[in-house]
Amino acid sequence: MTMTTDSPAQLDLPPAADEVLLDATVAAPAQAPDFTADDVLAAHRGGKLSVALRAPLVDRRDLSMLYTPGVADVSRLIAAEPAAARDYTWASRLVAVISDGTAVLGLGDIGPKASLPVMEGKSALMRSFAGLDSVPIVLNTTDPDEIVAAVTAIAPSFGAINLEDISAPRCFEVESRLIEALDIPVMHDDQHGTAVVVLAALMNAASVIQRVMIDLRVVIAGVGAAGVACANILLAAGVRDLVLVDSKGVLSTERTDLHPIKQALADRTNPRGVTGELSDAVAGADVFIGVSGGRMDPALVGAMGKQPIVFALANPTPEIDPVAALLHGAAVVATGRSDFPNQINNVLAFPGIFLGALDGGARRITEGMKVAAAGAICAAVPGRAAADRIVPDPFTPGLARMVADAVLAAARAEGVAE
Amino acid sequence: MTMTTDSPAQLDLPPAADEVLLDATVAAPAQAPDFTADDVLAAHRGGKLSVALRAPLVDRRDLSMLYTPGVADVSRLIAAEPAAARDYTWASRLVAVISDGTAVLGLGDIGPKASLPVMEGKSALMRSFAGLDSVPIVLNTTDPDEIVAAVTAIAPSFGAINLEDISAPRCFEVESRLIEALDIPVMHDDQHGTAVVVLAALMNAASVIQRVMIDLRVVIAGVGAAGVACANILLAAGVRDLVLVDSKGVLSTERTDLHPIKQALADRTNPRGVTGELSDAVAGADVFIGVSGGRMDPALVGAMGKQPIVFALANPTPEIDPVAALLHGAAVVATGRSDFPNQINNVLAFPGIFLGALDGGARRITEGMKVAAAGAICAAVPGRAAADRIVPDPFTPGLARMVADAVLAAARAEGVAE
Repeated sequence: MTMTTDSPAQLDLPPAADEVLLDATVAAPAQAPDFTADDVLAAHRGGKLSVALRAPLVDRRDLSMLYTPGVADVSRLIAAEPAAARDYTWASRLVAVISDGTAVLGLGDIGPKASLPVMEGKSALMRSFAGLDSVPIVLNTTDPDEIVAAVTAIAPSFGAINLEDISAPRCFEVESRLIEALDIPVMHDDQHGTAVVVLAALMNAASVIQRVMIDLRVVIAGVGAAGVACANILLAAGVRDLVLVDSKGVLSTERTDLHPIKQALADRTNPRGVTGELSDAVAGADVFIGVSGGRMDPALVGAMGKQPIVFALANPTPEIDPVAALLHGAAVVATGRSDFPNQINNVLAFPGIFLGALDGGARRITEGMKVAAAGAICAAVPGRAAADRIVPDPFTPGLARMVADAVLAAARAEGVAE
Repeated sequence: MTMTTDSPAQLDLPPAADEVLLDATVAAPAQAPDFTADDVLAAHRGGKLSVALRAPLVDRRDLSMLYTPGVADVSRLIAAEPAAARDYTWASRLVAVISDGTAVLGLGDIGPKASLPVMEGKSALMRSFAGLDSVPIVLNTTDPDEIVAAVTAIAPSFGAINLEDISAPRCFEVESRLIEALDIPVMHDDQHGTAVVVLAALMNAASVIQRVMIDLRVVIAGVGAAGVACANILLAAGVRDLVLVDSKGVLSTERTDLHPIKQALADRTNPRGVTGELSDAVAGADVFIGVSGGRMDPALVGAMGKQPIVFALANPTPEIDPVAALLHGAAVVATGRSDFPNQINNVLAFPGIFLGALDGGARRITEGMKVAAAGAICAAVPGRAAADRIVPDPFTPGLARMVADAVLAAARAEGVAE
């Protein structure tokens, strides 16, 4: 069978309609939150952020120290010793959250101004969960050349770049060009934050069913931003039997219609040479990871191997209804929703990843650093992992610090940090 | 006589060597501050700014309201009604302080990283003096096309743009192109902040010598960023006898070597058709405004009219030593230094100007708004102005609010604000 898409937002999408960018932190509108729309608007009035001073500026002495003439000493020092910028400016602890507003939550291409509340929210999470300063930057362009040029131009202002809600496939080009151009960490969170948490969750899910993760047969449905990143991190973590499926069917070396990004993945996956449709891939698989926004017949879970693991991460509507998945025999189910157990939520990952990268002055965020982050998240589940507890609570005390320490250790081991 | 320049930084400058950008807030190294270099470095450690949350984010409910799913309501609202961005994002109160690091304080072209402490300082002043949020953005390019493109790209993130420490003549092109491209206020503070305070000070200086300002014969030495802006605001404020002097001599319509910016000013100034050098312009003048970084023989003050007004604003060394100017008969002397009375300090102007412009949602900052700002600063001097009190103390309570109210009223009168 093929995946179907029924969300109105997707009907306007280009042919690769299932490759909509997923933000795994979008919860379903179906849930009944304990607040009203008026509460939400009130909480957002005036915006969510403010810029505060780290030291008082109340008299002439303060003014002379923090501005002229005192500040000239600091500028002179940095002009002579550029490395001093790390100690005497805020940039080394500052994350830019950058979006062009083209793939915002489940809302699609709503433009920079309408995306700004989400980016402010992301900056708020950087502060709350990792103590990092962060500034949202929304862009008046969707052209990759212009995005790369603008971000490169403003980069000296920041210590790291969190790309956010940029639609695929432009997100791949924008991220890889910026990683190449800049000597600070650049990470598209919709790709890698999701992938890190998926890996963490899968490590625990494997232990719940008493299997070794790298022996699992894994299917990823959806080869957009999140799907590509999930595939890459699972390969980096040692998964060997990985099959990817897009709207045209299974990715294999026989396909002639593939974007270079997908072609590269077709070359590295599908060792058994599966062809056909999603149902062909899913038959006998141990793990289904849905990052497509499409829909799958829950009966297919019954065609999977023993003790199926189902991650149905589309928002607001999971690819498979989680209750139906359990009824069809799934041993472990995760979604992107906060009203079911096992929410795959990027906030588990990105605050600690950026914290660790900035702590070490890392020049980039490697696949090894992401795998290390997943390990720390996996280990942060209190006690033994269980079918309804494969990821930690985002408010677990010290979580970001644990993730950061793991990321920093990996960065040092790989020689990309001090 | 011609102006001489003896500061090492200027020897590297192109032919129009006197047109160095002045920042009137740079104080002289000669003064003995009540802090050490170690104090300064300690005050700057970790940078001067941080991003804070306007509301707590400590539990799941907060997370659901301020991020997903709640934030989607706000994004949807703004997508449907773009004007709602003003109420529900921080951008409408957020000033970007943008520099390419080419003309920083008296230090010259020190690059973006070394300029960042100054820009953080400027953002700190926005917070302390006007309660505005502000983010420094330093640029990895000095190309006007690239600067305009980058600032245009990131503009939806901000409510106003403060250009800072961009060298002349690029600063004119960058500012005018951005004003044209954007529907938010753009102001190069080194030009207009200085000009506003000069006008305010001159209004009070005129009253001190019991003259009507628009009847004064005014000479401006230096036709760089600050000189051009001073000329424009004095013309806007009604000054009729204005003569400009650059390193090649008096600006007149007979000159054939003028940049278009200077040509336009030559056409609008020098009604008596003065030619020659600085000494020719100064003879009989009532007001000397030095914004050149050059040096002038103090004896020339004796050749000015009765009760000369001398604003020698170069930093760290004024064009004329202020004590020598008084000894040669100056009635009122102002400098850019904090260790003499009458410091011409941009901080008197820019916080209130941006506050007023943002309060009214002004689309641009007009010459009328700047003149109004100057009027408010002029009026903020307590009691009667005196020879040693032609500008208010920057810490005057409510100063930014007074300036903002005047700016807002002018903006409304001119139809550029609500």
